[in-house]
Amino acid sequence: MNLSKYIRNIEDFPKAGVRFKDITPLLANPDATVYCLQQLVALLEDEKIDKVVGIESRGFFFATLLAKELKAGFVPIRKPGKLPFNTLKEPYELEYGMDALEIHEDAIKKGERVLLHDDVLATGGTARAACKLIENLGGEIVQCNFLLEIAFLKGVQKLKNQNVKSLLKY
Amino acid sequence: MNLSKYIRNIEDFPKAGVRFKDITPLLANPDATVYCLQQLVALLEDEKIDKVVGIESRGFFFATLLAKELKAGFVPIRKPGKLPFNTLKEPYELEYGMDALEIHEDAIKKGERVLLHDDVLATGGTARAACKLIENLGGEIVQCNFLLEIAFLKGVQKLKNQNVKSLLKY
Repeated sequence: MNLSKYIRNIEDFPKAGVRFKDITPLLANPDATVYCLQQLVALLEDEKIDKVVGIESRGFFFATLLAKELKAGFVPIRKPGKLPFNTLKEPYELEYGMDALEIHEDAIKKGERVLLHDDVLATGGTARAACKLIENLGGEIVQCNFLLEIAFLKGVQKLKNQNVKSLLKY
Repeated sequence: MNLSKYIRNIEDFPKAGVRFKDITPLLANPDATVYCLQQLVALLEDEKIDKVVGIESRGFFFATLLAKELKAGFVPIRKPGKLPFNTLKEPYELEYGMDALEIHEDAIKKGERVLLHDDVLATGGTARAACKLIENLGGEIVQCNFLLEIAFLKGVQKLKNQNVKSLLKY
């Protein structure tokens, strides 16, 4: 199955000059979603996973499915102020200014084996901040996987010490 | 299994006087998540579903799992400006002021059978707006289901013409 058929290009979103990769046609198709999930699981090569971490919001879609498939717990990483319990916070740079991500302080136990998932690897800033949160809780990051990677933005370079995999490269 | 054991009360979140129901302990436990998913599926009593619609963001967690389980497509309903393609928008009232939800205009085809899912039914304002979006696209809403319902907020009254089900009532 050619998954890229289910990814829609949206020009100038969220701003002029950006070609956004819209994964909603993929999610709307149950066969494509199951195939994509199987491919993501295959990237792991049978590594045991305790927790799958998804990054708000589009990372949640496949992270919940991955967690069920891997019989692992699911953990959301969210924007500041969204998680209700005690959190760790990690800032990261945007093109202009800063933002931050949070994780619940009890979400990952020391030594747990973690899969980090997001839909898109772009500049790698959010994924790097997410890795720091997981590692600050004592989690061992087995893999960072993505549906697709925007290669020219070189996000992989920001995740140098990680095992980074993507299903599709653009 | 007593699912309420996996729901954590957070006092005064997001503001003073509110007792927030935190479902992250449930999501972190794979057995509880699978049990919860099975119970949500059972609420449907074998009705055929074409699309499962989840409301941003916490509705996404079980809506993606429900879609896979039901061999249906998944459709996100999001806050304004988040969905990249052409959208329908529906405003709804907050305690102070207004907000709105959006759906992609091609997300549901006329006559498709839809399950709407969110984590919590509170005042029912967002669920009612979501129902309007689905119906404006010609979708037939088979059920609105929720992990839990805050009964004293009477959200069910805002969803009068719908088949509303919740796993837990508070």
